[in-house]
Amino acid sequence: SATHLLETLNSSDANIDDIGTYDDFHTIDWLREMSRNRLRHRQIIYRKKESFFRTLKGLHDAWSGWLVVLLVGLAAGTCAGIIDIVTKWLTDIKLGTCTGKFWLNKESCCWNSETISASGENCTEWKTWAAIFGVDHGSSTTIYAVNYMLYIVLALSFASLAAILVKMFAPYACGSGIPEVKTILSGFIIRGYLGKWTLLIKSITAPLAVASNLSLGKEGPLVHIAGCCGNIFAHLFPKYGKNEAKKREVLSAAAAAGVSVAFGAPVGGVLFSLEEVSYYFPMKTLWRSFFCALTAAFILRSINPFGNSHLVMFYVTYNKPWFLFELVPFALIGALGGLYGAAFIHANLAWCKFRKTSKLGNYPIIEVMVVTLVTAAASYPNPYTRIDASMMIAELVKECGPVVQNNLCDYSFSKQPTNTTFSVVQDFPVAPIGSGLRTALWQLALALLFKGVITVFTFGLKVPTGLFIPSMGVGAIMGRLIGVGVEQLVYMYPDCVLWNTSCHAGHSCVTPGLYAMVGAAATLGGVTRMTVSLVVIMFELTGGLQYIVPLMAAAMFSKWVGDAFGNEGIYDGHIRLNGYPFLDNKEEFTHTTLATDVMRPRRGDNPLTVVVQEGMSVEDLETLVRTTNFNGFPVITSHDTQQLVGYLYRRDLILALENAHQHNDNVLSNSPVYFTLHAPTPSLSNTNDPSPVRLFNIVDLSPITVTDHTPMEIVVEIFSKLGIRQALVTHNGKLLGIITKKDVLRHIAQLNKQDPDSILFN
Amino acid sequence: SATHLLETLNSSDANIDDIGTYDDFHTIDWLREMSRNRLRHRQIIYRKKESFFRTLKGLHDAWSGWLVVLLVGLAAGTCAGIIDIVTKWLTDIKLGTCTGKFWLNKESCCWNSETISASGENCTEWKTWAAIFGVDHGSSTTIYAVNYMLYIVLALSFASLAAILVKMFAPYACGSGIPEVKTILSGFIIRGYLGKWTLLIKSITAPLAVASNLSLGKEGPLVHIAGCCGNIFAHLFPKYGKNEAKKREVLSAAAAAGVSVAFGAPVGGVLFSLEEVSYYFPMKTLWRSFFCALTAAFILRSINPFGNSHLVMFYVTYNKPWFLFELVPFALIGALGGLYGAAFIHANLAWCKFRKTSKLGNYPIIEVMVVTLVTAAASYPNPYTRIDASMMIAELVKECGPVVQNNLCDYSFSKQPTNTTFSVVQDFPVAPIGSGLRTALWQLALALLFKGVITVFTFGLKVPTGLFIPSMGVGAIMGRLIGVGVEQLVYMYPDCVLWNTSCHAGHSCVTPGLYAMVGAAATLGGVTRMTVSLVVIMFELTGGLQYIVPLMAAAMFSKWVGDAFGNEGIYDGHIRLNGYPFLDNKEEFTHTTLATDVMRPRRGDNPLTVVVQEGMSVEDLETLVRTTNFNGFPVITSHDTQQLVGYLYRRDLILALENAHQHNDNVLSNSPVYFTLHAPTPSLSNTNDPSPVRLFNIVDLSPITVTDHTPMEIVVEIFSKLGIRQALVTHNGKLLGIITKKDVLRHIAQLNKQDPDSILFN
Repeated sequence: SATHLLETLNSSDANIDDIGTYDDFHTIDWLREMSRNRLRHRQIIYRKKESFFRTLKGLHDAWSGWLVVLLVGLAAGTCAGIIDIVTKWLTDIKLGTCTGKFWLNKESCCWNSETISASGENCTEWKTWAAIFGVDHGSSTTIYAVNYMLYIVLALSFASLAAILVKMFAPYACGSGIPEVKTILSGFIIRGYLGKWTLLIKSITAPLAVASNLSLGKEGPLVHIAGCCGNIFAHLFPKYGKNEAKKREVLSAAAAAGVSVAFGAPVGGVLFSLEEVSYYFPMKTLWRSFFCALTAAFILRSINPFGNSHLVMFYVTYNKPWFLFELVPFALIGALGGLYGAAFIHANLAWCKFRKTSKLGNYPIIEVMVVTLVTAAASYPNPYTRIDASMMIAELVKECGPVVQNNLCDYSFSKQPTNTTFSVVQDFPVAPIGSGLRTALWQLALALLFKGVITVFTFGLKVPTGLFIPSMGVGAIMGRLIGVGVEQLVYMYPDCVLWNTSCHAGHSCVTPGLYAMVGAAATLGGVTRMTVSLVVIMFELTGGLQYIVPLMAAAMFSKWVGDAFGNEGIYDGHIRLNGYPFLDNKEEFTHTTLATDVMRPRRGDNPLTVVVQEGMSVEDLETLVRTTNFNGFPVITSHDTQQLVGYLYRRDLILALENAHQHNDNVLSNSPVYFTLHAPTPSLSNTNDPSPVRLFNIVDLSPITVTDHTPMEIVVEIFSKLGIRQALVTHNGKLLGIITKKDVLRHIAQLNKQDPDSILFN
Repeated sequence: SATHLLETLNSSDANIDDIGTYDDFHTIDWLREMSRNRLRHRQIIYRKKESFFRTLKGLHDAWSGWLVVLLVGLAAGTCAGIIDIVTKWLTDIKLGTCTGKFWLNKESCCWNSETISASGENCTEWKTWAAIFGVDHGSSTTIYAVNYMLYIVLALSFASLAAILVKMFAPYACGSGIPEVKTILSGFIIRGYLGKWTLLIKSITAPLAVASNLSLGKEGPLVHIAGCCGNIFAHLFPKYGKNEAKKREVLSAAAAAGVSVAFGAPVGGVLFSLEEVSYYFPMKTLWRSFFCALTAAFILRSINPFGNSHLVMFYVTYNKPWFLFELVPFALIGALGGLYGAAFIHANLAWCKFRKTSKLGNYPIIEVMVVTLVTAAASYPNPYTRIDASMMIAELVKECGPVVQNNLCDYSFSKQPTNTTFSVVQDFPVAPIGSGLRTALWQLALALLFKGVITVFTFGLKVPTGLFIPSMGVGAIMGRLIGVGVEQLVYMYPDCVLWNTSCHAGHSCVTPGLYAMVGAAATLGGVTRMTVSLVVIMFELTGGLQYIVPLMAAAMFSKWVGDAFGNEGIYDGHIRLNGYPFLDNKEEFTHTTLATDVMRPRRGDNPLTVVVQEGMSVEDLETLVRTTNFNGFPVITSHDTQQLVGYLYRRDLILALENAHQHNDNVLSNSPVYFTLHAPTPSLSNTNDPSPVRLFNIVDLSPITVTDHTPMEIVVEIFSKLGIRQALVTHNGKLLGIITKKDVLRHIAQLNKQDPDSILFN
């Protein structure tokens, strides 16, 4: 058995690399890839004792799994750190610059500043563009106009630069990338989508796009960027680079690292990868993904891009309790978030469909510029849209305390709380809305409206467009507005039975900042339909187990309401729109169709193209290869019995025929081909007869088969759980037809009243 | 199609309940159960519009998934709260009682006490037994002896009571229950294992066992108890109670709730359920499990059993940073934890095997009493073993600060830090070991030795025995010892290049409490081989992302070192020891055997028992059922062609034959049975001929088949991923044999050089 094994290994050594290559836009066969990996692994184990070099190779192989995720984690963390720093600098430069030290962002510029200006907020080193250009002595209108104009010009130039770079160097760098990463992880090949050019261009254009003040984030693109890192490092290790199934383990880990650095949430990142992105996720991968996510977070923390030792701009630590009655507004926020999500998905998909089908799709750069112009022009006047969306979220989720002095905390206290007796935040008194807060509420309402609408047109532009931050931004505004409303309600009716036991008169017991956080979770849940990972990410952002119940309540209501208006998240919607062959393993197939309804040939079609074990010539097979484009052919005993023997892959057949021609000049067009174990010995007398070709060894003798009566629910389960590409259909042991993954997907689309031809690829 | 559907529904309505019942100690067929559930679901959807009642029923069905996990969460949280309170009271009563208010535990007794005794620690209301019995005026030796004696007597009586209750009322209540829950979740039936008696007895005996000071915890049993709650509530909903596959979704959620309340870690609980316990875990279940775990934690928090608003006794919030050089001792702790785990698993399994095979197994109560006697006698003199193990862990993981005054923090300061200038913990000065700490270290070393050994004999006793706390206890001691060692090393060599940049002279930069936490993670990881869930649980216990890297490092080294000495965790070891049919879906099958090597009949065996489509009589079939005990029979076209038609389940055949006899008196022993779609019409002339029986509808026409050449690696993947019970083996469409799950398990055992007959059940 051992010698036989080794023999098999040696014979298969030659073409082992060729077998694994798939064409672009084709689906991989997980079962086959995993078998190939096990073969490779056995080979290494078996040869381990041959020499010291082989032992070392075996050791390298065993550790390469950890090494590759370590490298991916390091790379993803570094990329994220650089992107964060560049984004911050670019965002600030729209408003002004640091005199003498243009490479510093506003915070770093003012870090060591001892000269605080009169306004109490700005340092003198940091100057607006109006001041730089010497118009700061003009009228305030002139100053405003100059700053406004430069804001728009800079935003426009950032966005057009990004759009041009994407169009010229890496068309795949546009969008969030999550739908495509999800499709790739489900076993689809898109060459170059995770390549080095995409990585480079996306890393450059993501900060530009964010800085152009478009309603988009860099969090989704970070997942794509991490995926690129994963793909690039996987190629350093043949174990992962040359096996599409194993490569996807690294990509799953990379996706986890991407979310980990995007939100500073390693656990949430792993759960996101598990829940939302990954397809095949064994426990070993879970553990490595966790390691990868943690490494990335650790690196980012060492880079410390925000200077606050947290990984995101809006990390908060509340210390106020919440009360049971608040679950009602939290549920309401959740439901509104779900509604927004459903509306957003419908509108955005409709707009993207329009873009695809109309002439609009031909002018991506102009489209980007128009949207940027509109966004920048409308954003500047409103202080909440003028700043970066993640800074806005950071401001909205903060609680009001004695130290915080901004419009959002401007209540009309009977006594102004300027004295420092309010050291404990719990003692912050409750009061009616002040004029500053009233202004802020109006501005927020306008920002909500504007952001809610413009994001529909932004997601899908041909620049890197993340959706997390804009969704969270809309939700944070909504949550803060509702939070202030509830706060005022409690203030006005302190004796209401709902809260009179929880809230002590005169003291605030409602934290509007928490409502903003809950709102962010609700809209994000409504748009993406994430569940566990959403709650865990938000839980890691709020840094306490205390708020997990409100977040969970909002996420649940958001999901329920969202699902009531359409069962798919934005990523699934875009996958469908683009026609990617994604077989969702989370959806249950509930129809009663049978395998016979789905298989090909259909009634009236040409009969199935098959190969018979004996009786075909080299020419027959070459004609078969030339005239068809099937990925493989079932092998049967004879046309009479139709008994299934196995499956022959097109690629293997082509290689084998080429091989036969090369090694034996007597293999001619009329050479008989035998797919049997024991081919008849050629008679020695007729040496001029063409040599027979024996190709038994290239037949896959263990194809997955189902009977014609198998319910499609089971067929779908077999396809999604085993990750196969085709299954053969038999009746009483006789071959009837074939079902491919594409057939299954078309069938599902048809049953869901969608166009079955929307599935574009193989 | 719709009428046909309804017809099918109606005809299958009658025996739909019977189909699902499996015998005790049998394996379920996931694919079949899930199909049954989809049928039931379609039925409800289809009839929804018939009447208002049906609509309500449909609504109830849709919500029952959430309702059942809500109920399970509430129940699990309540059980955990009661068990925590009772355990605390029972543990305290071993040492003394509250005068006048015997129902209070020590903490509650002293809560309102204003009379602090001279020792500064005890309140006067709480009296030791010696004081109660009036011997507190005797010599200190007498007092000690009385307390010692009563301690042993009470411990003994608690333990024996627990053992007797378990033996008399619920034998399944012993042990941790996790191996069995894991087996049940993988699709095995153990009737009564999750029943109400088990729930009741385990809830009573778990506190007794913990209070008897045996080296065990109640955390593992809490998972079992939550599982019982899950099973009981599942029976309230036919959707879950009558479908073994759906019931396991509830059980998965219950397991998550169990860990959630055991450690106050809802996210960790879900990941534990996902990683360690569950088998089939769709995303929908993940979300509901999370909800269940959160509900349970929320209820427990409302009960607040420890009075500290945390769910566990050893919740800590450190605020000291750790330094990179510390990763070396952390990795060392991890490796030691892995070593301990491997040693523990080997020793414990050997001891349990000895118990099973020797006479020792016949005297469970005496065994419990002996172990309790030894434990109690050896524990009392040592202050660290005298108290409850979780209290010991709580003390070990604490950091030393100016307020903490115990032996563990007794350093010889040049100046005693009695003044309150050390308000910031970072400023706690570093100093050499004081006499108190020296004593404590000796006591801890002895406790380590004793606990490490006695736990081997405790886990497996016939009382509820959890393993989490004892393992963590051993690790916490080890970690603390190493932590103090590193601290002193840093103190003695302050200029060492490793740490001279991180640690400022004179200030402590090593937190021994953190080392204890890391040690607890390391040993727990070594014993259970948990990975992600371990880190997340510990992360939720330490309440900060900051320490996740040390915990991860320890967990990784622990797993690597542990796996080097044996690849299975303690739970898998016990599953193997008990011969449960557990097909691990996390292990890869790496051998090169083929389906033909595993299938039955083997060469030389009797031919496979089959049913032919035409030509068998009722008597033939009745003989078949009587003389064999197979769960089903393959159906073939004829003995000549051997072409496979389908699979006939034994239970269906018996029911169908009974049915035929009841409905038609002319069905006799020699009635022909047709398993074909179109049976020949009986000739009208011979009305005296026995009526033919048509049983086409009970044949499963879509059995899972594999070819004889299919590699076993693919067969194992099909079995574990699809959860099937048997697969039929064909060659060129002809039936060759059958592979059952038991055959696969025996084959795996054989390849792993284990006894293939160790797999006991079907």
